[in-house]
Amino acid sequence: MAPMGSPGETVRAAARRGPGRPADDGADRRQAILDAAREQFAAKGYDAASVRGIAREAGVDPALVHHYFGSKEKVFVAAMQLPFVPAERLPAVLEGDPAGMAERLARMFLGLWAQPDFRTPMLGLVRSAFTGEQGATMLREFVGTALLGRVAQALGGIDPLRVQVAAAQMVGVVILRYVVRLEPLASAPDDDVVALITPTLRRYLTGDDEPSKA
Amino acid sequence: MAPMGSPGETVRAAARRGPGRPADDGADRRQAILDAAREQFAAKGYDAASVRGIAREAGVDPALVHHYFGSKEKVFVAAMQLPFVPAERLPAVLEGDPAGMAERLARMFLGLWAQPDFRTPMLGLVRSAFTGEQGATMLREFVGTALLGRVAQALGGIDPLRVQVAAAQMVGVVILRYVVRLEPLASAPDDDVVALITPTLRRYLTGDDEPSKA
Repeated sequence: MAPMGSPGETVRAAARRGPGRPADDGADRRQAILDAAREQFAAKGYDAASVRGIAREAGVDPALVHHYFGSKEKVFVAAMQLPFVPAERLPAVLEGDPAGMAERLARMFLGLWAQPDFRTPMLGLVRSAFTGEQGATMLREFVGTALLGRVAQALGGIDPLRVQVAAAQMVGVVILRYVVRLEPLASAPDDDVVALITPTLRRYLTGDDEPSKA
Repeated sequence: MAPMGSPGETVRAAARRGPGRPADDGADRRQAILDAAREQFAAKGYDAASVRGIAREAGVDPALVHHYFGSKEKVFVAAMQLPFVPAERLPAVLEGDPAGMAERLARMFLGLWAQPDFRTPMLGLVRSAFTGEQGATMLREFVGTALLGRVAQALGGIDPLRVQVAAAQMVGVVILRYVVRLEPLASAPDDDVVALITPTLRRYLTGDDEPSKA
């Protein structure tokens, strides 16, 4: 394993641990990484934060961050207590039969939001975007890079505006369904909502009927 | 003019005015109505609050509420400092040529949100829905009754779910455009967004291509 951080950083990490606790306590170092990650993502946003910077802030070696979490995306997901690693879920949606992609996307999105364990932390992240610039920056960059960037890449050469307007359809549905709680949308079965929005997503993402320019 | 409220209510209104201020001061009574309205809408929601209840709480005659504001909707708009009275703006969108309604709706919605004087209080209302049940109830009922109810009525017999999914498309666009500030959506000209979402709204609102049931 690579050498630990500079002496100054080691002292900081020790100070964070407090007296009398072993320096190599795994749970302790994992927590120090998560604390440092929250600070770095809030201060720099998702894109500019790095595993190296988070490791430096936590007073540990970057290899330890990779060992515990695997990637910047997974550090973010753990630090924000999100129940969803896009890199693990999106391939099944994006790599299957292209004709069914819009429906798979709608179904995965609504299925995740139907779970309180998913919804609660995600609503927290959206709320943070309303209440402060830092939250908006984190959400913008995480959604842009880890979610929509992958969708755009899978669709090759698509106008990113189309991907974002498709995302807007899904975001609007969950806001009205779970935050505003408009009826009948709040109680409608997933299948009914999927049936309504799938043609919309398909049009945006595959352009199978181009919008007429005004 | 109808008689003023009960003696007890008059005392409460006088207490609110404080000592030494004239009982018939117009600006004072207008403010008492707005304060009472905020209390009533927060406590009861938009639908259950009434001009009569607001007048009672403010210690004034209901006729005075009508005199200053004209309708419950306008009391709400004034109390929440919203820059938009749906009853005044929607007819032009809903009563014109039906074929162009979806585009007029998209254009009015985006045009209003482009104005900071409109956007700031509206974002405050949406934020209140994220942070408390009272805010969600007020927003749900106001949007449901004063906005979407009128759209559904103009379209006669339409499934309210379709109106709400159309609203979700527009709500999602303004959340990603003005709160999350995703690029290129945040900087895209209104015309480009209108061109993309108009066919979506038309499909939901006029059903001109029925979604296939899964």
